[in-house]
Amino acid sequence: MNEELQGRGRESGDAYAQAGVDISAGNAAVALYRARAAGWRHPNQLDALGGFAGLFAYPTPDAESVLVGSADGVGTKILVAAALRRYDTVGQDLVNHCVNDILVTNATPLFFLDYLAVGALDAEMAGQVVSGVHEACRRNNVALLGGETAEMPGLYAPGHFDLAGTIVGTVRRAELPQVESVSVGDAIIGLQTNGLQTNGYSLARKVIPESEWSARFDGATIGERLLAIHPSFFEPVRAMQRVARVKAMAHITGGGLLENVPRTLRKGVQAVFDASAWSVPAIVAEVAHRAQLTHEECYRTLNMGVGFTLIVPAEDAAVALAASSGAALVGRIGARGEGEPAVVVHPRATA
Amino acid sequence: MNEELQGRGRESGDAYAQAGVDISAGNAAVALYRARAAGWRHPNQLDALGGFAGLFAYPTPDAESVLVGSADGVGTKILVAAALRRYDTVGQDLVNHCVNDILVTNATPLFFLDYLAVGALDAEMAGQVVSGVHEACRRNNVALLGGETAEMPGLYAPGHFDLAGTIVGTVRRAELPQVESVSVGDAIIGLQTNGLQTNGYSLARKVIPESEWSARFDGATIGERLLAIHPSFFEPVRAMQRVARVKAMAHITGGGLLENVPRTLRKGVQAVFDASAWSVPAIVAEVAHRAQLTHEECYRTLNMGVGFTLIVPAEDAAVALAASSGAALVGRIGARGEGEPAVVVHPRATA
Repeated sequence: MNEELQGRGRESGDAYAQAGVDISAGNAAVALYRARAAGWRHPNQLDALGGFAGLFAYPTPDAESVLVGSADGVGTKILVAAALRRYDTVGQDLVNHCVNDILVTNATPLFFLDYLAVGALDAEMAGQVVSGVHEACRRNNVALLGGETAEMPGLYAPGHFDLAGTIVGTVRRAELPQVESVSVGDAIIGLQTNGLQTNGYSLARKVIPESEWSARFDGATIGERLLAIHPSFFEPVRAMQRVARVKAMAHITGGGLLENVPRTLRKGVQAVFDASAWSVPAIVAEVAHRAQLTHEECYRTLNMGVGFTLIVPAEDAAVALAASSGAALVGRIGARGEGEPAVVVHPRATA
Repeated sequence: MNEELQGRGRESGDAYAQAGVDISAGNAAVALYRARAAGWRHPNQLDALGGFAGLFAYPTPDAESVLVGSADGVGTKILVAAALRRYDTVGQDLVNHCVNDILVTNATPLFFLDYLAVGALDAEMAGQVVSGVHEACRRNNVALLGGETAEMPGLYAPGHFDLAGTIVGTVRRAELPQVESVSVGDAIIGLQTNGLQTNGYSLARKVIPESEWSARFDGATIGERLLAIHPSFFEPVRAMQRVARVKAMAHITGGGLLENVPRTLRKGVQAVFDASAWSVPAIVAEVAHRAQLTHEECYRTLNMGVGFTLIVPAEDAAVALAASSGAALVGRIGARGEGEPAVVVHPRATA
């Protein structure tokens, strides 16, 4: 059927119709993908050969170059999007999430591939999902090298879908973060985020029932706040790196500050956060409140408003903060004694 | 929770328990992943930094190098595996499928990342799925650079799961297949396959109900034949390339010979197959028979026994065939006139 787009495949074949797989919807979806992709293509992307795979000219071949890969999904944020029939944001969540994950290694993203699975293919819906993927790829200057749209009646309920993806980036060995260089007294800079990002949705859906999602909340609806797009922190991080030395970074995904910051912290140091230094998005506070999370549970489950952290020498903190409007000085590196936790969050003073 | 394995993430957080996400099962699954991965690791794989992403030392940096990426899923073969509780084969299907997809561009695979989504995480089951992924990576000499295991109650039914993945490989520009060089008289070599590979399962499940899957069939059970592992054609292709010039290749996925071979065929030529030159696996014949597929539908829906095709100069055919035991001369390149199809399959003589 030659319906591939830059390596994008679909099951096909006339006889699929009798098995409940809609070929015409597939063709319509691919037409929408093509129309969207016609607007922008990464300059390093090469013409695909028959659509089995996508080709990308490696920009800086160098014996010091390391490829960096990460795969992720959108989690049950997908069920919020499906319920609200809002299909153009989850692709952006996914790409931005992946960009941030490899940014922790200081990698610059090169290309992305998505996997969209549906119970019954609705071309318009699939087109919107992939449109969101494409939009975020363009904004992050990442090639959308390919993807797979799979129609699987029997696995996904009507109206349900899943979306996952893989990003590949590159970093030179000498530019990998030096977590061993983190020292007592270093500053921790946090990048403010706008909502739950892509974690905590199983909990959020449990404590805020779907019947409330159209209710007004924080200047929008609960549903809109739940679907706030996971930001890409690539540009703010690069802006800070132009003026400051960044020793280590963490993307605050599932596990919150308590479990993500230690992932790039050396032994013997402790990250001490002051929660009064940043604000908690209203939707995040609402989930924490309704779920009656303890202080510890809050910072182990939700991002609580900090989407990404960077550790810089104390003397570089001021210039780093000036380089990014969404950045705040959120903590300090201290010494970690035997038996002490790797992360401590001092609660904000209650008003 | 620091439960990552080479970039393998999971949603975590104590408060997830109240939302139906089982953290202890997650830890157990990760322990199984680690145990499996301890047995073999690709030499170019570097230590991951905090588990947000996997790192891979690019082996042959060269301005002529092109990266090749492809994403795919296992399709509804997953539902057969889930019903039969046979979890160790679909990972192999997926990796081998992806290896073959990029092999069409002549790429050598470098690394792979998987995405496993489940309704309720069963550590033993997830461990077996990822074990299959790891096994096929090892056999294909591909680094398993990372992956995501997502537990999504509400999206997947209990016992159901989905599995997708992305492969990245490399090829030098000069070694990309030259489809323009395909000429009338060239030979088409086919690699025999063992079953449906990973396409046609929506149809197969419709015409062979689950109640029959334990019935004896072709020296095994119907279920076992349905789950025959999609072969990797990397080694046979490389063996042939050592002795023969290969001009173009196709992986026979959904769409069969009729839709896949034209994907790398230049204008003006026609691939003419002689179906008596190879055998149809019994399970494939059974599906075609029960679905009452026409000749055209057979070759547009199922692989009909040919898993991969290579176009070589006629004078190279004999040495190529001698280099691989599973290879057969299955067709010739002819001239394609105006209005003629790109692929013709002459039916086998009926006995």
